[in-house]
Amino acid sequence: MNTFGHRFRFTTFGESHGKALGCVVDGVPAGIKIDEEFIQSEMDRRKPGQNKYATSRKEGDKVEILSGVFEGITTGTSISMIIFNENQKSKDYTNVKDLFRPGHADFTYFNKYGTRDYRGGGRSSARETAARVAAGAIAKLMLKELDIKVQSGICAIDGVEANEYDFSSVNDSEIFALDKNVEQKQKDAILAAKNKHNSVGGVALINVKNAPIGLGEPLYFKLDSQIANAMMSINAVKAVEIGDGTLSSKVKGYDNNDQIRKDGFKTNHSGGILGGISNGDDINIKVYFKSTPSIFIKQETVDINNNEVDCELKGRHDPCVAVRGSVVAESMMALVLADMALLNMSSKIENVKKVYSK
Amino acid sequence: MNTFGHRFRFTTFGESHGKALGCVVDGVPAGIKIDEEFIQSEMDRRKPGQNKYATSRKEGDKVEILSGVFEGITTGTSISMIIFNENQKSKDYTNVKDLFRPGHADFTYFNKYGTRDYRGGGRSSARETAARVAAGAIAKLMLKELDIKVQSGICAIDGVEANEYDFSSVNDSEIFALDKNVEQKQKDAILAAKNKHNSVGGVALINVKNAPIGLGEPLYFKLDSQIANAMMSINAVKAVEIGDGTLSSKVKGYDNNDQIRKDGFKTNHSGGILGGISNGDDINIKVYFKSTPSIFIKQETVDINNNEVDCELKGRHDPCVAVRGSVVAESMMALVLADMALLNMSSKIENVKKVYSK
Amino acid sequence: MNTFGHRFRFTTFGESHGKALGCVVDGVPAGIKIDEEFIQSEMDRRKPGQNKYATSRKEGDKVEILSGVFEGITTGTSISMIIFNENQKSKDYTNVKDLFRPGHADFTYFNKYGTRDYRGGGRSSARETAARVAAGAIAKLMLKELDIKVQSGICAIDGVEANEYDFSSVNDSEIFALDKNVEQKQKDAILAAKNKHNSVGGVALINVKNAPIGLGEPLYFKLDSQIANAMMSINAVKAVEIGDGTLSSKVKGYDNNDQIRKDGFKTNHSGGILGGISNGDDINIKVYFKSTPSIFIKQETVDINNNEVDCELKGRHDPCVAVRGSVVAESMMALVLADMALLNMSSKIENVKKVYSK
Amino acid sequence: MNTFGHRFRFTTFGESHGKALGCVVDGVPAGIKIDEEFIQSEMDRRKPGQNKYATSRKEGDKVEILSGVFEGITTGTSISMIIFNENQKSKDYTNVKDLFRPGHADFTYFNKYGTRDYRGGGRSSARETAARVAAGAIAKLMLKELDIKVQSGICAIDGVEANEYDFSSVNDSEIFALDKNVEQKQKDAILAAKNKHNSVGGVALINVKNAPIGLGEPLYFKLDSQIANAMMSINAVKAVEIGDGTLSSKVKGYDNNDQIRKDGFKTNHSGGILGGISNGDDINIKVYFKSTPSIFIKQETVDINNNEVDCELKGRHDPCVAVRGSVVAESMMALVLADMALLNMSSKIENVKKVYSK
Repeated sequence: MNTFGHRFRFTTFGESHGKALGCVVDGVPAGIKIDEEFIQSEMDRRKPGQNKYATSRKEGDKVEILSGVFEGITTGTSISMIIFNENQKSKDYTNVKDLFRPGHADFTYFNKYGTRDYRGGGRSSARETAARVAAGAIAKLMLKELDIKVQSGICAIDGVEANEYDFSSVNDSEIFALDKNVEQKQKDAILAAKNKHNSVGGVALINVKNAPIGLGEPLYFKLDSQIANAMMSINAVKAVEIGDGTLSSKVKGYDNNDQIRKDGFKTNHSGGILGGISNGDDINIKVYFKSTPSIFIKQETVDINNNEVDCELKGRHDPCVAVRGSVVAESMMALVLADMALLNMSSKIENVKKVYSK
Repeated sequence: MNTFGHRFRFTTFGESHGKALGCVVDGVPAGIKIDEEFIQSEMDRRKPGQNKYATSRKEGDKVEILSGVFEGITTGTSISMIIFNENQKSKDYTNVKDLFRPGHADFTYFNKYGTRDYRGGGRSSARETAARVAAGAIAKLMLKELDIKVQSGICAIDGVEANEYDFSSVNDSEIFALDKNVEQKQKDAILAAKNKHNSVGGVALINVKNAPIGLGEPLYFKLDSQIANAMMSINAVKAVEIGDGTLSSKVKGYDNNDQIRKDGFKTNHSGGILGGISNGDDINIKVYFKSTPSIFIKQETVDINNNEVDCELKGRHDPCVAVRGSVVAESMMALVLADMALLNMSSKIENVKKVYSK
Repeated sequence: MNTFGHRFRFTTFGESHGKALGCVVDGVPAGIKIDEEFIQSEMDRRKPGQNKYATSRKEGDKVEILSGVFEGITTGTSISMIIFNENQKSKDYTNVKDLFRPGHADFTYFNKYGTRDYRGGGRSSARETAARVAAGAIAKLMLKELDIKVQSGICAIDGVEANEYDFSSVNDSEIFALDKNVEQKQKDAILAAKNKHNSVGGVALINVKNAPIGLGEPLYFKLDSQIANAMMSINAVKAVEIGDGTLSSKVKGYDNNDQIRKDGFKTNHSGGILGGISNGDDINIKVYFKSTPSIFIKQETVDINNNEVDCELKGRHDPCVAVRGSVVAESMMALVLADMALLNMSSKIENVKKVYSK
Repeated sequence: MNTFGHRFRFTTFGESHGKALGCVVDGVPAGIKIDEEFIQSEMDRRKPGQNKYATSRKEGDKVEILSGVFEGITTGTSISMIIFNENQKSKDYTNVKDLFRPGHADFTYFNKYGTRDYRGGGRSSARETAARVAAGAIAKLMLKELDIKVQSGICAIDGVEANEYDFSSVNDSEIFALDKNVEQKQKDAILAAKNKHNSVGGVALINVKNAPIGLGEPLYFKLDSQIANAMMSINAVKAVEIGDGTLSSKVKGYDNNDQIRKDGFKTNHSGGILGGISNGDDINIKVYFKSTPSIFIKQETVDINNNEVDCELKGRHDPCVAVRGSVVAESMMALVLADMALLNMSSKIENVKKVYSK
């Protein structure tokens, strides 16, 4: 099931070392101006090969729109976008063709499907997330029409945590750091691990400004459950927190409740979501990425015939997937919001009448 | 959208102070023996009014099966179950009729829908989870046919954490504690908060044994994303961790990867899921519940006309929703697994042929 | 899969001779006044036991709303409705317990599920359509807010066709005849067959007035494909026509095209749907019901052990299911339109902005 | 919503005069050998420009598989296929840029979306059906593994009906005629209309052999309702019949029921479906295509400003869309069956255990 979303939905396809990746975005309202430069700029934020904190695989990640846009405007039909792979080095994978890399999906794909595309993880590669960013860019263009803004940054790397969150510094940082004061320490942690052929994990913070009150369809398409779903579908994500998250389980009710005044909530422990519905405050979520499973230290594993063998990886890998992963998480957030914004339209008959009144 | 699941799916209905709650469970394979006593015993684990650590609202929570079962066996048609409400005290809510209780869904429901059933939170009440447990019991009866076992327990209350996880002690504990050695401290934390008209949060651990390899449909119905979705749909849940969860973002790749030997994985940091697919190992997840928002301390809020008012609650509430919430989380896990087990059936043509061979 | 619809959706449950039937209607916008008398009046149009042209099984078909409505207004939460069975005579089915009634679902249910509730066809009985009418009444209440009107009538019985379609005469007719001039002949056809222990088929016409332009989501949720889907899901329906239907395959393009003038279409061969989208003209569809399979003439069949046996039915059956079936078809049309009306809301960004503008 | 199907599903994209058309097929079991020549041969059956009974637009309709297949075998991941447009003549549409062609989707698309791609009908063009045939070919490769065969042919053109159905003659016929004896008369009808700048309609018969008993999920994903849905989603289809179809409404129950003997049904009036579930007999359905709306006779219409204007078409069009449409209908049938075959796998716990037994 390679489709995400209900009313604003996208389907992705493509493997790490196949011909192309892409997506079909469906349910996009007609009449939205499609800024192709913006879409490409989103791709560029995620694309590999840009600095020493990321993989050296170089991909142009040029997106081509094949359908759904006419004279620069969405037509309401399905928007397909394609990204051709350029810089595959499938040979790097010859030696792991028949074995299961620890921490990877090799073992489970092989057992589930009885076969697998071993080149770079095939479909399970994080390369697929390029297609999500393309789809997310369309979502952002829709959200822009509603003045909703989504942003992200890195709040922790290898346990080195940001003390303050400053989204304005993210774009200047090679690791999208939210806190300039710890950025160097976070970078050092990445390089230290990289030099030891090891890897590190990290945490991304996703923030939404100006979300309207009412997003989220209780009880089983709550905004927070959709966000959790979306984030946990990203490669290497192992935990998701809404608002204060795990901390909310440790403080008393009085300290966790956000009291309300005329002009809004006094605090935002909830992360902008109450009862699964956005409350108009900032939406804040944290996404925890495990350390990259692709490391260059010898590891024990088995092959497809269950013989015990050593695994020694080649190839080019991000020493910390959280960094580029934060862009993907931001895209997924945009996609969830776009979907929820469309779903929420029919929450009350008053809205239905607004649309159908002549 | 009150439906959860794809192939094994359920729809719930009912409000806290309405006539009845219930669910329709659809997609249940025919031929499963329905043990009504077991279903009731599941209800009884969650039901309120059993001890001083839970709300004093007393509900029999008797489930009646209305359809889908014939002569004790599922027929493949939709199974509906109904639970009549007995012990509503709607008067307790008269004074909060027009105001928004902090930490509750009152504010968002009212704004989203333009109206709300104020009695006990209406649809947003955790009372709805009774229907989930009924549905979950059906899921468990299906999983039993495949020898899959789901269990749960409390691993932390108000920051007091279990040091060991012993599922055998859960049933004997009024708070479903996993660690007898900290149980009393956890109970004390609940009562201390309760006595101060305040509340506490907690953490549930859900464990699955004997899940087959292959559950989870990449990329957007991954097992972990479905679990995160399910758990975050439960009232008061603010964070979900798979396996080592947040910790995985702090350790190096070598330490987080689970190396593999002939007889299985050497460790289980992943929580039994790789690439969104179960790997045959135990599935472990942690669910973080915020402290109960219903407290009896005066709080600041506004009413539906945005006048600033004080909120002083009456009524009967769990001082720690995590406790009974753990049973709900366990039920949701069973529901996710049942769904994923059915979805996974067609992963390879070999399986399809097995079913259709004569 | 007992759920129909996407945004306005309903799920039904219950068997012919079980305790109760019912439905859960989900996605209904909040703020709609629920007129329970109207719902009951819709039930009464379909209910059995009213005259000699229908089965003599007497059911009060009283609907009880269990949730989703508060103080007479929809709250946006799932609306559940229940109808208790009263007049089952399960003994009538003892002699067909182990054999497959020709023209019925007995054979296929037994083979698909390996078991079946033989009493009155169990889930496959047209009795389930009572729940559709209840759900349809909710849909009609929503459509009323948009001034959309759905009506139906019988245009043919046993090949005796109406020459004109007068919906105003339907309610006065025991067989919902559209043409008073052929009504008696149609009634005679029913009774003639009934007296010979046989049955007849018939055709219903469903008409929609004032549907807005734009309903239907191309390409795979076109309005006509959703209608066809809905109608073909009704028991005994074997053909569906949109507009001129089969005739459109026999005339030339020039004669089938509806030319357009300032004030609308000059003709309505299309049945109000172009490219799968409503064009603002009347929507007209015809639904063909086969003759009732339950007849009292001896028939050849086999039992569940594939022994050849005779089938001799007892029980009470409609001699022409098309009559009451027309009410069900009308309900399904209302349900499709309600769903499509909500889905269409996000067709253009201009509409999205209308809802979200402050 | 450009996705069809539930477990075996496909999503299409592309416009008549855009860069490319394509589809993403999802849920295909792993391990199926993909015969690219077969896929192309299916495309060739539908492709335009082959004889005087079809449009003269010449398209190679070469399909390229971009993902989901590795070393000639499906991997269980999403299969994307692309077909580049080659022979667009968008200039043909300059004169109809601002007006609504009668019988076309121009009027409804423009009103629904507020904008439209006028070139060749854009998304509403039957050119999109090329993508369905590509997806259908994948479905057929899956059905082949289960020995299920789908075939089609033309049974009527412009009211000239086949007297016998001989599928072996279809491939030799330029108009896929089922009855050689009337083929010439049918061809003459097409050419006669074409010469008068007019068009004709026709009827396709779709036949399935060896479908297993049990396909179809009651009550709202019945096999017949899914087929009706699928067929009515094809351009120009205005009616669908299952088995005897409209005739079933005119004969008595005794004559319409299919009695049963040890070795199967004595007749097949039902078209192989009972209670919405396949009964193991041949599935037969008829699909009625209206006469092509694109004709070269002057017609009255309005423009986008509601000015009354004349419509005079240029371009290249099929004089009878039913002919190539029959291939599309056959493809849609294959897609429905593949979906239903996967959905049916979990109908009984016995099947579930078969897949999970070790």
